[in-house]
Amino acid sequence: MTTQTIIGIMGPGNNVPNSELKLAYALGKAVAQQGWALLTGGRPAGVMEAASHGAASADGIVLGILSEGPGAPVATGVTLPIVTGMGSARNAINVLSSQGIIACGLGLGTVSEIALALKAQKPVVLMPYNPLAKDFFEALAPGQFEMTHDVNLCIEYLTAKLP
Amino acid sequence: MTTQTIIGIMGPGNNVPNSELKLAYALGKAVAQQGWALLTGGRPAGVMEAASHGAASADGIVLGILSEGPGAPVATGVTLPIVTGMGSARNAINVLSSQGIIACGLGLGTVSEIALALKAQKPVVLMPYNPLAKDFFEALAPGQFEMTHDVNLCIEYLTAKLP
Amino acid sequence: MTTQTIIGIMGPGNNVPNSELKLAYALGKAVAQQGWALLTGGRPAGVMEAASHGAASADGIVLGILSEGPGAPVATGVTLPIVTGMGSARNAINVLSSQGIIACGLGLGTVSEIALALKAQKPVVLMPYNPLAKDFFEALAPGQFEMTHDVNLCIEYLTAKLP
Amino acid sequence: MTTQTIIGIMGPGNNVPNSELKLAYALGKAVAQQGWALLTGGRPAGVMEAASHGAASADGIVLGILSEGPGAPVATGVTLPIVTGMGSARNAINVLSSQGIIACGLGLGTVSEIALALKAQKPVVLMPYNPLAKDFFEALAPGQFEMTHDVNLCIEYLTAKLP
Repeated sequence: MTTQTIIGIMGPGNNVPNSELKLAYALGKAVAQQGWALLTGGRPAGVMEAASHGAASADGIVLGILSEGPGAPVATGVTLPIVTGMGSARNAINVLSSQGIIACGLGLGTVSEIALALKAQKPVVLMPYNPLAKDFFEALAPGQFEMTHDVNLCIEYLTAKLP
Repeated sequence: MTTQTIIGIMGPGNNVPNSELKLAYALGKAVAQQGWALLTGGRPAGVMEAASHGAASADGIVLGILSEGPGAPVATGVTLPIVTGMGSARNAINVLSSQGIIACGLGLGTVSEIALALKAQKPVVLMPYNPLAKDFFEALAPGQFEMTHDVNLCIEYLTAKLP
Repeated sequence: MTTQTIIGIMGPGNNVPNSELKLAYALGKAVAQQGWALLTGGRPAGVMEAASHGAASADGIVLGILSEGPGAPVATGVTLPIVTGMGSARNAINVLSSQGIIACGLGLGTVSEIALALKAQKPVVLMPYNPLAKDFFEALAPGQFEMTHDVNLCIEYLTAKLP
Repeated sequence: MTTQTIIGIMGPGNNVPNSELKLAYALGKAVAQQGWALLTGGRPAGVMEAASHGAASADGIVLGILSEGPGAPVATGVTLPIVTGMGSARNAINVLSSQGIIACGLGLGTVSEIALALKAQKPVVLMPYNPLAKDFFEALAPGQFEMTHDVNLCIEYLTAKLP
């Protein structure tokens, strides 16, 4: 197996609307179909789980970077659980280990990851379209991210930005 | 010495306007005058340095939680440098170790800390007033933070919220 | 791809005798031939590199959990580089993410990982035979590890201990 | 307050013989009497607690670097609890933040800290005298540490080594 391109899909675990779960599934599937490894937070909840299922449906590699310690539940579809036991400090690992980051929905943990990803000058796509988030991050990191509703545009943007 | 209340002042290291450096100095001084220990990111730059100077002017305890490893420069005024060598993962420590968090100015690292602080349900004050940040975080964590230009109001808010 | 069993091979990066580099290569290859994913520290040096080469020779998955930040060199053979930027704090991740740990040679970093692995009650094999290390760890964790010169015995021990 | 010298006392939390608890108390007291800040793991157990009590008896500053997250119990005597929520990964912070390290007794966590401290080339004192540990670490880091039963010798050794 050659070195894999790793793309992170970040998003909330709780209170995720159905439309965003569907989007996360489609994104996970698209990432795997590109031949990229998927990285998520690994928990069996919300966007993490939906994206993992999507990637698994296309037989993809799924890294689950778990904030909890040994014995914590893992989303089905995760092929390689990385157990950090570090709480939210693992968000930094998610960002640094991904060559590109897709935020699907906005929770507070997701916001911390978007901010760290922009700080680390990673390619970032925010989904779905959210004018308030666009204005907020545009003021902090002008021109450094894409925002779209469209899975294909997201994949094209990342493809163009990858090293 | 009894157990100290720890208040974190978070803010950017670079490109900080003079008005925010003055605010950081005043906040650091006010925190120390309350008898609270100050926690910052510890670097000799921007808000971290100005807040440390302010606390030092009132003979306060200043914890500097450094992202870098041994030998990294430390802001004058820091009385207890904690060397993590963990990069941005140390932002999680800043948040969890503070009983209350003041964000002074907005950089990407600061945004990650505000998000983690709100997620951890810590008392948070954002300064100075910034309508875009107010709307953005209000949508994610309604009623969970204060935003003000005023140092006294900031201290009052935190005092009321401390355990 | 189903969930993989992850086995960590830990060992020094510098001043590794040729016999231990050969052992690390054989161990990496044997781990991959078992169908296990290999986890190492990921650097292009010493035991990490030799084990990665061994696993790559059998077309294995190799997780490299890097202590350094973005842009650090990675051992050839690593298929999934995880970038922690956390220095030696990442040793804890190596241990928690592995279902079994093989220490190949003894450096100070390796000793920290053996100790954390025994503390986390992971199956541990120390190689090659080292009477001083045997006595030292036996006093701290009696009956909790195997020590051998033999790659086959190592694999058998881990196989028997895996969940 | 000027910048403090920080000395770490590491040691097990459980199954600590009474003689080592007394030693930890005496060491904590001696560290505080030198005007040094004490750093421990912060838990209300074993060596951490005894050393904190000793330092508190001499009105010292005590940093407790907690492996657990918010709400975890803290040893009395700790004046500044640092909450990492990072499990054993915080051992690296203990080591990097201390200008000198005293290991009082030997648990597996302590061994990981001794190894990281020697790797980081920190001054290290192992107590009490333990021939097996002496031989083991001497083989890995010759001439890099002191081993003694005597609190005064420990303090003298660290004093001579401090920057």
